[in-house]
Amino acid sequence: MSKITVQCPATVANLVCGFDVLGMALDEPYDIMEVSLLEEPVIRIVSGDGFPLPSDPAQNTAGAPLIAMQDELEKPVGFEVIIHKKIKPGSGVGSSAASAAGAVVAANHLLKNRFSKEDLVRFAMFGEKVASGVKHADNIAPCIYGGITLIRSIFPLDIVSIPAPLLHVTVVHPQIEVKTADARQILRKEVLLKDAIRQWGNIAGLVAGFIKNDYELIGRSLEDVIIEPVRSMLIPGFDHVKSQCKTAGALGGGISGSGPSIFMLSRDIQTARAIEQVMKNIYNDIGLDYHTYVTTINHTGVKTA
Amino acid sequence: MSKITVQCPATVANLVCGFDVLGMALDEPYDIMEVSLLEEPVIRIVSGDGFPLPSDPAQNTAGAPLIAMQDELEKPVGFEVIIHKKIKPGSGVGSSAASAAGAVVAANHLLKNRFSKEDLVRFAMFGEKVASGVKHADNIAPCIYGGITLIRSIFPLDIVSIPAPLLHVTVVHPQIEVKTADARQILRKEVLLKDAIRQWGNIAGLVAGFIKNDYELIGRSLEDVIIEPVRSMLIPGFDHVKSQCKTAGALGGGISGSGPSIFMLSRDIQTARAIEQVMKNIYNDIGLDYHTYVTTINHTGVKTA
Repeated sequence: MSKITVQCPATVANLVCGFDVLGMALDEPYDIMEVSLLEEPVIRIVSGDGFPLPSDPAQNTAGAPLIAMQDELEKPVGFEVIIHKKIKPGSGVGSSAASAAGAVVAANHLLKNRFSKEDLVRFAMFGEKVASGVKHADNIAPCIYGGITLIRSIFPLDIVSIPAPLLHVTVVHPQIEVKTADARQILRKEVLLKDAIRQWGNIAGLVAGFIKNDYELIGRSLEDVIIEPVRSMLIPGFDHVKSQCKTAGALGGGISGSGPSIFMLSRDIQTARAIEQVMKNIYNDIGLDYHTYVTTINHTGVKTA
Repeated sequence: MSKITVQCPATVANLVCGFDVLGMALDEPYDIMEVSLLEEPVIRIVSGDGFPLPSDPAQNTAGAPLIAMQDELEKPVGFEVIIHKKIKPGSGVGSSAASAAGAVVAANHLLKNRFSKEDLVRFAMFGEKVASGVKHADNIAPCIYGGITLIRSIFPLDIVSIPAPLLHVTVVHPQIEVKTADARQILRKEVLLKDAIRQWGNIAGLVAGFIKNDYELIGRSLEDVIIEPVRSMLIPGFDHVKSQCKTAGALGGGISGSGPSIFMLSRDIQTARAIEQVMKNIYNDIGLDYHTYVTTINHTGVKTA
């Protein structure tokens, strides 16, 4: 029996104008997962810190991806997974993706890397389906590839790594619950063509800004005229946080994933820390509990601890 | 009295998934414009090749931009413009933009470049308003800047140059008329969110493909699920041209601007020429007159002849 321990990074999906297609990995927070290879073809999920987990592996975000992986092995094996959850579920920074991605990356190491990264994304999406009812890859892909990723297409899967300059990320997680499924349901099924055009101008600008290291262009492109106006209503203080963080020097930012976390990008660590203080002040005033993180983009994805 | 002669390139707007925001300049065809500075503040537009032009400068695609420019001069001057039209109006490769952009770039030279390129785009859009009723910049910007340009935003104007690898462009202009205003009118005002998401995945992929010199990614991203399915119905043979050109090795392509021209991108000149033959065969079979061009991306924009 062999065993591996991995770090599984939090991720920010959507990146404002890149709803469902862009995501980035963070250096903090991250989960720790210990995965062991078993000879009998079973999946055992164990909470390493007392956090309650579904006992049926098929209903668990780490278990479902491993079952999908098992299905493609000639000689089935099993896995025991011990999860130390540091990324709070429902926070909007890819908690379920971290479990799903971590499980398959660790398992693949134990199987001597017989699957490609694309295969791993494919498997891990089964975990997202368990978590939110939808197979999406905008947290999974950056969690596995690291950095900023574009999911150009899900069927067929087409993942593109987007290089970017050094960026500091400030995240605030106000302690309210926003379920991904609910956040999805409030979106309109149709959007105005003129808004869609503005959105694809912005995502094109954002991708160009990342690859060309153009901070001003990144800032100007961090605008979402479709999703944010609807979803931000679920997050107390959102407009206030956004406007005050930009005044304090943030390039821009918005809802992380489907919320309630809010992220802001900055050029330098001083600004990122000043923005953290702005966020703290606002949620202290509102009287809502919160966590904050000041971090950078993670460029490795899931890695051995 | 001083005088200048400029070459004004044809342009391909939209670039498949970049409706209203992307455009590129072509090395061929191009208009020739001779512009002279006049002391009296009048605008005179003269056809250099007998092509009929509106006599009122305010109704002419070259005249309206010059009037807009005049309005921002302390001491008004006038211009005489002689237009040699090689880019057929209504062909979908930026004929009106070439006149508008050529006029203001030439006039700016005569005024010792007192206006910025952005100013010139702003003036030239008045020509597009005359031509199609809408101030759009997706032909104007590449015509003035050269290369591939992103119009991230029109108000305020935000133009981003997108670097790209060597690409060969084959264009066929079937001799039917598609008016930009009509092509715009048949579009639905609302689109499905899921289609919009697919479109912004594609434009993000296309921009990344251009900047990263990734030909395969460029090819995969040249997909339009919103505009092309509607507009292509106005262009006889469109589906046939597209599928056969891709079979013949084109990376991809689609409607140029609002049509009826169709463009295809290729990695090498041999493929671009083979594709020209495919296009010729199809329109010979249909029995529709046509012009074809095999060219490359123009990187200078309007330049002195």
